[in-house]
Amino acid sequence: MVCEIWTPNRNTDKSIHQQIFHYLEDRIITGEWPAGYKLTPQRKLAEELNVHRSTIVNVLEDLKSSGLIEGQKGSATRVTTNINAFLTNGNRVNWDFRIKNAIYKESPPFLKTINNLELDSNIIQLSRAELADGFFPKYQMREITRLVGENLNYLGKEDPKGYFPLRESIARHLKNYGINTSPDCILVTSGATQGLQLIALGLLEKGSTVFLDTPSYLYSRHAFQSAGINLRGVSMDEKGMIPFEICNLRNYQNRAAIYSIPSFHNPTGIVMPPSRRNSILEMCLKQRLPLIEDDVYRDLWIDEPTPPPMKSMEGGNSVLYVGSLSKSLSPGLRIGWTVANKQVIERLADIKLQLDNGSSILPQHIAYEWLKGQFYNEYLMEIRKKLRVRRDFLLYMLEKHLGGIASWKVPTGGFFIWVNLNKCKSVHHLYLRLLNRGILIHPGSIYNEDRHNYVRLSFSYASMEELEEGIVVLAEELLKL
Amino acid sequence: MVCEIWTPNRNTDKSIHQQIFHYLEDRIITGEWPAGYKLTPQRKLAEELNVHRSTIVNVLEDLKSSGLIEGQKGSATRVTTNINAFLTNGNRVNWDFRIKNAIYKESPPFLKTINNLELDSNIIQLSRAELADGFFPKYQMREITRLVGENLNYLGKEDPKGYFPLRESIARHLKNYGINTSPDCILVTSGATQGLQLIALGLLEKGSTVFLDTPSYLYSRHAFQSAGINLRGVSMDEKGMIPFEICNLRNYQNRAAIYSIPSFHNPTGIVMPPSRRNSILEMCLKQRLPLIEDDVYRDLWIDEPTPPPMKSMEGGNSVLYVGSLSKSLSPGLRIGWTVANKQVIERLADIKLQLDNGSSILPQHIAYEWLKGQFYNEYLMEIRKKLRVRRDFLLYMLEKHLGGIASWKVPTGGFFIWVNLNKCKSVHHLYLRLLNRGILIHPGSIYNEDRHNYVRLSFSYASMEELEEGIVVLAEELLKL
Ligand SMILES: Cc1ncc(COP(=O)(O)O)c(C=O)c1O
Ligand SMILES: Cc1ncc(COP(=O)(O)O)c(C=O)c1O
Repeated sequence: MVCEIWTPNRNTDKSIHQQIFHYLEDRIITGEWPAGYKLTPQRKLAEELNVHRSTIVNVLEDLKSSGLIEGQKGSATRVTTNINAFLTNGNRVNWDFRIKNAIYKESPPFLKTINNLELDSNIIQLSRAELADGFFPKYQMREITRLVGENLNYLGKEDPKGYFPLRESIARHLKNYGINTSPDCILVTSGATQGLQLIALGLLEKGSTVFLDTPSYLYSRHAFQSAGINLRGVSMDEKGMIPFEICNLRNYQNRAAIYSIPSFHNPTGIVMPPSRRNSILEMCLKQRLPLIEDDVYRDLWIDEPTPPPMKSMEGGNSVLYVGSLSKSLSPGLRIGWTVANKQVIERLADIKLQLDNGSSILPQHIAYEWLKGQFYNEYLMEIRKKLRVRRDFLLYMLEKHLGGIASWKVPTGGFFIWVNLNKCKSVHHLYLRLLNRGILIHPGSIYNEDRHNYVRLSFSYASMEELEEGIVVLAEELLKL
Repeated sequence: MVCEIWTPNRNTDKSIHQQIFHYLEDRIITGEWPAGYKLTPQRKLAEELNVHRSTIVNVLEDLKSSGLIEGQKGSATRVTTNINAFLTNGNRVNWDFRIKNAIYKESPPFLKTINNLELDSNIIQLSRAELADGFFPKYQMREITRLVGENLNYLGKEDPKGYFPLRESIARHLKNYGINTSPDCILVTSGATQGLQLIALGLLEKGSTVFLDTPSYLYSRHAFQSAGINLRGVSMDEKGMIPFEICNLRNYQNRAAIYSIPSFHNPTGIVMPPSRRNSILEMCLKQRLPLIEDDVYRDLWIDEPTPPPMKSMEGGNSVLYVGSLSKSLSPGLRIGWTVANKQVIERLADIKLQLDNGSSILPQHIAYEWLKGQFYNEYLMEIRKKLRVRRDFLLYMLEKHLGGIASWKVPTGGFFIWVNLNKCKSVHHLYLRLLNRGILIHPGSIYNEDRHNYVRLSFSYASMEELEEGIVVLAEELLKL
């Protein structure tokens, strides 16, 4: 039916997927392909349009869920039998338009891609920022769940700030870090992610600017942007964020904030020493800027205890402190906390009510059981030993296979080694080649364009064998580039 | 020290709390009250300013968390000893400004007040939209939690759409309602609340208009507004939303949506009959408007099964369907679902990742255990019997004590009786008087100004004795008004 063969244009903003979707949609809406019309088989269509078969599969699935085509697995795909009624009813909401113009922006495609790849158990994960399942304290967790289940009475409406005994035990836990606070000044959140999001929505004016480490954690960057916040990068040296670069923000008045990951920074692994923490906090105090301290890796020190958080220092009430059990215990529990003054916490709790009507109660009870006694601290001691072995092994592998052609700093905790591949010109290329061989890394380029010769390697998730294979292949591909 | 006695002004927008806070803050910042200055005792201050003592207590607490005053329980409250260092450090972030101007708006004060009152176990709750703890299937829930705990292996990163087997079992459950869908078209959310919020952020342009039942559920109204959506009320008759009022929205193009609670509507209890559902859906289809169908009370029918949802009707792919276990099983579990086409669900899942990094896994496993077999359906049969008894009892009490001076329709399910207090001129007054006697109702005025003679009474939460006492007192106070 198609006389001149159309193919997608690779030099536009529109994705190949979108172009094909609209091309096929047009054929149907215009009636060119009538009700019951049998579509060209997937394989053939892929060839004709010169795209991968999986692209066609995805587009067809979307056309199906839009109601334009139908067909069971195995049998041919056809234009929906009652397509005319469907179309004259005019009953097609323009989802594309709505998605594109909605209040929150879509994630950049590379984030979605990496996120999906991180869920693929066939890929060697040098990327996942998460403890391996082998670390998971299965028996303790089962025991605690049993205990919590046994004492379950009622799961009703609760204080939006979170389960009170949990907030008490978090307050006690934070005391170990030198933070003096009370349950009223703590909000239990769905991980650190939600804390950051609530801060963005509840304390920042639309169009405000957040100054943050360059490079910085991808998702928090994106979450701020989605909410309508501008980002400005602040350079780092080997001690973290450079105070001088944030010394002159008075013009922003109440429309700016600082966001930093001072302990085992994602992606560089850098730890801010106490003196630098002092200087950063002082800069914030002088300019009346809130400081968002994202401290999710604090408990994961390997060589020596993490320096005290800025929240614990004099002037700490300008600090919005964000923590979580995701990195040290389990990301699937979704328990984090935000610490701030009471007025701020109430504001954030109010927004949390609007967003999710409060956190689920069971995971809070479980987190409470972990934190109330010495359970969690004892567990951490084990974790640190295991993390050290993995870190040392990855360092050894790097030395063995990349010594001389790459350089790195030894991280003293956390999950990451930030490797400078000296002469590598396109880490994106390397990323694709590794992926082709079943290995996932974070190319520095997704953090910042000028990091085209860095990779973030995580030693927390892959097995020893996988770490070895990953580095061997990385070295091979690097030399081939 | 204060020559002319200042008192708060009751005729301004600023709350009494804010005024007193700023008044005291000024005394300290200006140096009028120097470091170590001993504040007037609370009781005296309350008298001088002619406010309730609890207001003073709250203000002082906030001044304390701002670092301006100090003092242990029992001893006098004083201006912070190192207040000068504190002030010249300039280290006070202007939280007030930030809270007031942030992206999300604060909840209206009455919402916060009612929300707090609903958590007060000393108050008779004719307000809480929740099953009484006596309904809670404690033993089944314990057993299920034990089971889930026993089989726990790992709580790691998961598909942002939610636990796959749960989505499968939700799809099966929805089939009972006539909705044909697949796990790919289902997003597990933190209750219906999060579903509504994701729809607002992910499918509506800033400044869009949502047309909704008048009156309608308070929190969803507020959640849409917080996100920057305009609301327009649509009148209801005894069959629910009136289609004629939404027949002419073409000018809004892609910048409008319809939101309705067709089954056991909150607050009126109205059920849309099938013919009305058809007309509403048709209006949406003709104008290519998405229809947000909030169906959280569906499973709670008492007299006869709820009519099929609009999502199940022809053209149902324009419907964004929102459901939850909060009303029928437990609000503290925080399990809900949104059903839409795959493209939309992926968009919403992407935003969910940004907001909370996914739902907690354990509650999803528990919900799965409830939904996978006949457990939940059998449980519902019990609940319906108990709900019927309570509804009938409340109707009997109304007849006995308010017959002739009030009128109502018999709800055929859900939690609410929407009572017209005929001649009552200020239901807000009545609300305050009842509160004074330890009874909480929802005055119609919080739903809509012109409902000054309605109350929403919930028969789901209070005990029989409490229901009786509540209605007796309501009748007494009504007669006194
Ligand atoms: C710096 C940082 N903050 C926050 C998070 C998210 O933590 P959570 O799972 O507690 O939301 C991560 C996870 O990668 C992270 O690296
Ligand atoms: C109509 C309606 N939608 C949504 C909700 C909130 O439900 P969830 O707890 O599942 O977020 C309620 C609760 O009162 C409600 O009445």
